[in-house]
Amino acid sequence: MRAKTKLNPKQNKKPIGIFDSGFGGLTVMSAIYKKFPNENLIYFGDTAHVPYGSKSKDTVIKFSKDIAAFLLKNDVKLIVVACNTASAFALPALQKSVSVPVIGVIEPGAESAAASTKTNKIGIIGTEGTINSRSYAKAIKKISKAYVFEQACPLFVPLVEEGWTDNKITSETADVYMAPLIAKKIDTLVLGCTHYPLLKTVLRKTAGDKITLIDSADAITMKVGTLLAKNGFANDSKKKGSVSFYVSDNPEKFKKIGAKFFSGKINKVKKIDLE
Amino acid sequence: MRAKTKLNPKQNKKPIGIFDSGFGGLTVMSAIYKKFPNENLIYFGDTAHVPYGSKSKDTVIKFSKDIAAFLLKNDVKLIVVACNTASAFALPALQKSVSVPVIGVIEPGAESAAASTKTNKIGIIGTEGTINSRSYAKAIKKISKAYVFEQACPLFVPLVEEGWTDNKITSETADVYMAPLIAKKIDTLVLGCTHYPLLKTVLRKTAGDKITLIDSADAITMKVGTLLAKNGFANDSKKKGSVSFYVSDNPEKFKKIGAKFFSGKINKVKKIDLE
Repeated sequence: MRAKTKLNPKQNKKPIGIFDSGFGGLTVMSAIYKKFPNENLIYFGDTAHVPYGSKSKDTVIKFSKDIAAFLLKNDVKLIVVACNTASAFALPALQKSVSVPVIGVIEPGAESAAASTKTNKIGIIGTEGTINSRSYAKAIKKISKAYVFEQACPLFVPLVEEGWTDNKITSETADVYMAPLIAKKIDTLVLGCTHYPLLKTVLRKTAGDKITLIDSADAITMKVGTLLAKNGFANDSKKKGSVSFYVSDNPEKFKKIGAKFFSGKINKVKKIDLE
Repeated sequence: MRAKTKLNPKQNKKPIGIFDSGFGGLTVMSAIYKKFPNENLIYFGDTAHVPYGSKSKDTVIKFSKDIAAFLLKNDVKLIVVACNTASAFALPALQKSVSVPVIGVIEPGAESAAASTKTNKIGIIGTEGTINSRSYAKAIKKISKAYVFEQACPLFVPLVEEGWTDNKITSETADVYMAPLIAKKIDTLVLGCTHYPLLKTVLRKTAGDKITLIDSADAITMKVGTLLAKNGFANDSKKKGSVSFYVSDNPEKFKKIGAKFFSGKINKVKKIDLE
């Protein structure tokens, strides 16, 4: 992550842009909103293309660049890629092509996991795209000697979106996915998808008390704080910041389901055609 | 469905175009391939945009028109919309704008269901998009006095794509989705999504012996036969027809997962960028 532009004090009022393939990134938006209530936030959910997890690298890079262009048109001072798949596939491409700092969820999650593990055995769960990219394993290898065990959990996103965040079927599904990681005796588990914080109750039951759960939303929010402070571009206004929501499809559905993911109120959602 | 062009005998050799949002339509392709082995078939799976089931009508129409344009460039004599969501949302728009006959899965499924029911109680299962469109209910109302009970099953497609076509979790999920339909005492169930034929074993267990399962792949294949005969444009070649596969993303994954859906061999899959 590199801060490319030196901002003058006026630019501190500019919004932070946050994007995801759909609703999941709202868990990140929510954490940032709670921690930095005076920042202006713009969210983009790419609901015409959701999910990214099963799509190819090139396609995810194309989608991500289109969204970044939209956020830049809205004059953001910083872009948060609140989607693990897009962070895994598109972060370097965005950092190269975009004129403001861009941060993703992988590095902050990897750093938190490396700091947490005592047995040096870290588990990662995520979508097929995130897991196949091996991004968490690579990021952890750079900073730690821990062993990393990865598990794709393709059913978790649909289960969350069905609203089945804490029932028998979801628990049994979690048991199937978690069994290989538990067998490896991990002591730290990275929730490598922004939907997964909604499954914390189920995952806590499956994982037991001895495994620390790392929520990427918390990890990236700390990173946003560091970046705002370091670059001196935190919004110093005393007023509560504004929040805006844009999607590429189904604004009404986003409003309805989004309420589960975002702690604030989603009043208005605007549909934007990126193509 | 209207046959718009009168084809001369030469045109009989032209391929049939079949499309779906992803793999599911391969169950339809498979049924057509078995029934009409000397027809040339072209399949397009819109894997960059899959799934359609949760997307809006306008967006699904746009995707469908792009695919139809691609198939027409490949000189198809007939387009089969092998996707329930696209049939529900985009069929009238395609029939208006496209120069060859276009048929969808809804009408054939509705006709089979109306012919099958004795108690006049029909159940429909499908994706959110198909169910919310009420297309099956409307199509059945036109031809029958049967009561129609509808149930969206958003987890079935991800379960099939995870390969969990016959395990405990899928059975329990089917029990949850089917309970309201069984309570209504339906005697006929339309599998209103091209993925669902792969769940027949599970659905048979949940539904019991007294409910007839209507597979849209079989229903539309009969319709293709009628249309070929009526318009005199069946391929009269004695040779085995060719099959070609195109996708908008992840050709390798399509080849691998597609094998579960298609009875023939998928040798080569080509990626096409429609945008």
